[in-house]
Amino acid sequence: MTDTPSARLGADAIHTFWDASLPPALTVRPGETVVFSTLDASFGGVARRVRDGGEPHAGADLRALVEAHAYDERDLPRGHPLPGPVFVEGAEPGDALVVEVLSVETGAWGWTSCRPRGIGLLDGVLEREGLLTEPRTRLWDLRGGDVAEFAPGVRVPLAPFCGVMGVAPGEPGRHPTSPPRRVGGNMDVRQLVAGSVLRLPVEVPGALFSVGDVHGAQGDGELCGTGIETDGTVTLRFTLERGSPVTTPHVLVPPRIDTRLDRLGWYATTGHAPDLMEAARIAVREMLSHVSRTYGMDALDAYLLASACVDLRISQLVDAPNWTVSALLPLEVFG
Amino acid sequence: MTDTPSARLGADAIHTFWDASLPPALTVRPGETVVFSTLDASFGGVARRVRDGGEPHAGADLRALVEAHAYDERDLPRGHPLPGPVFVEGAEPGDALVVEVLSVETGAWGWTSCRPRGIGLLDGVLEREGLLTEPRTRLWDLRGGDVAEFAPGVRVPLAPFCGVMGVAPGEPGRHPTSPPRRVGGNMDVRQLVAGSVLRLPVEVPGALFSVGDVHGAQGDGELCGTGIETDGTVTLRFTLERGSPVTTPHVLVPPRIDTRLDRLGWYATTGHAPDLMEAARIAVREMLSHVSRTYGMDALDAYLLASACVDLRISQLVDAPNWTVSALLPLEVFG
Repeated sequence: MTDTPSARLGADAIHTFWDASLPPALTVRPGETVVFSTLDASFGGVARRVRDGGEPHAGADLRALVEAHAYDERDLPRGHPLPGPVFVEGAEPGDALVVEVLSVETGAWGWTSCRPRGIGLLDGVLEREGLLTEPRTRLWDLRGGDVAEFAPGVRVPLAPFCGVMGVAPGEPGRHPTSPPRRVGGNMDVRQLVAGSVLRLPVEVPGALFSVGDVHGAQGDGELCGTGIETDGTVTLRFTLERGSPVTTPHVLVPPRIDTRLDRLGWYATTGHAPDLMEAARIAVREMLSHVSRTYGMDALDAYLLASACVDLRISQLVDAPNWTVSALLPLEVFG
Repeated sequence: MTDTPSARLGADAIHTFWDASLPPALTVRPGETVVFSTLDASFGGVARRVRDGGEPHAGADLRALVEAHAYDERDLPRGHPLPGPVFVEGAEPGDALVVEVLSVETGAWGWTSCRPRGIGLLDGVLEREGLLTEPRTRLWDLRGGDVAEFAPGVRVPLAPFCGVMGVAPGEPGRHPTSPPRRVGGNMDVRQLVAGSVLRLPVEVPGALFSVGDVHGAQGDGELCGTGIETDGTVTLRFTLERGSPVTTPHVLVPPRIDTRLDRLGWYATTGHAPDLMEAARIAVREMLSHVSRTYGMDALDAYLLASACVDLRISQLVDAPNWTVSALLPLEVFG
């Protein structure tokens, strides 16, 4: 095994939807390593804004920019900008594509945003309360590489991963990048950090793998709809598992990825309701109140911060008629 | 602060439903510590069966017993047997009852069971596949106190907690113990181990706290409907928070409760669907296949084992129209 990359793929080879008929941007043999340069969901717009406008402070509100969504001058259909697809020689339907995540590096700046409606667990809820009437976007300075400051004394440990890793669905036609599927895609599984191994069921010859949407950090749930969004550099090694039993993505998660988050324990709020989404809503709304009250920030900043670091766990889904979701805040963030 | 218990409450003072009109079994002042002896959901039937029938091997199938549910000779209504209620002097609606979990000890034996339908995430699913046609119950030997063996080479670290901790709902009448509520109850939050602190919103004078349903271990989700069910000895200290903002149970979780589970990393399966419950079903069904195939046990044993140790995390609930649930198996169990 070597980590020496065989190839590079960058922002000049992006697509914004899944489609098995897309021509490969790169062909690799099993065992090869590829370095991907990825853009954030603003197509690099936030990074350009920072570069053009001078260095802002972390925590700055870039609402106008992200609201306008710079997207791309190339006039691509709306979707995540994904370098790829990569054709893996010999991959056939029924195999699994095995993706070793060798490294994930963030760009210099990241952002997290929420809006009144259209996305997010509290879609409409905070708007009805009169708290979220306009979008808000906060900037994170990621240049330290280790933690990112949200506000003085509030720091989120970084654990970068790719929000999107997937292969082309077998079904013909264009498929949007937003929903994840049995072939992966926009899964936002935060455990996909460097050292993890992803197995994806292959549905088309060559697998047609693409990647993107690096997050500097994110809680389980990505509850406002964005993690710490950033551009990135991602090194992946591809192998194949022939005749794989995998029918939905599997992840081998390395030990100790949460050791730092766990250093001071957690503060949890719980929600109990006959619907898991509603139970999550109750737990998270209560968490925002707790964070606002305890740490002196408004509900919107609490929402953005929570999306970057609060984990949603299903505590039980068997005690009918109410299920329990717990929202866990790592106290390290305020440590 | 002292851990010296002020009082004890045992199986002679149990109730099996929530009701604000129940007479207190005990009255304490804030700051006092109480030791509770709790029964498992079989009302001690499994422990009696073991005692009467000679020592079985861990992993033995006690189906007949638990199916028949020994319940209680006292002919109580069906529900969790809960020592209590405890009247906390001075507690008033609007306060929070603060419960410090000083220790949770299991009994000598525990059990986990699944049945074709009526409870469990895969309710009906495994039955339709012809895999779960009769209930199955496995016994765990908990006398080691540290880990419990499910099968040779398969060991679950113990982390005992109370499945049920709650106060009486303000609404008059009898309320079943199965569903948890905003006043707590059968929450099955596995983070409520010794060292945690629970805050419950008080709805009636004196709070009327009860506890029970000790689990030797359980994954987030309790996916087949039972953790490692056991009787137990629980030491709790009660204080009050006046005029509390808590509107649903909060938990302060101590650090490092998962350090041991995390030692070898995790194997995750993911489910993607427009409904969180369905996403969980997909992830868990795939996990059972993975465990069966990899470790040579049938799907039912995999189901029972997973309920004791597999965690369900909501990876994202914002990438419409599909949400992602990940099922995480701690590899320590096979280590």
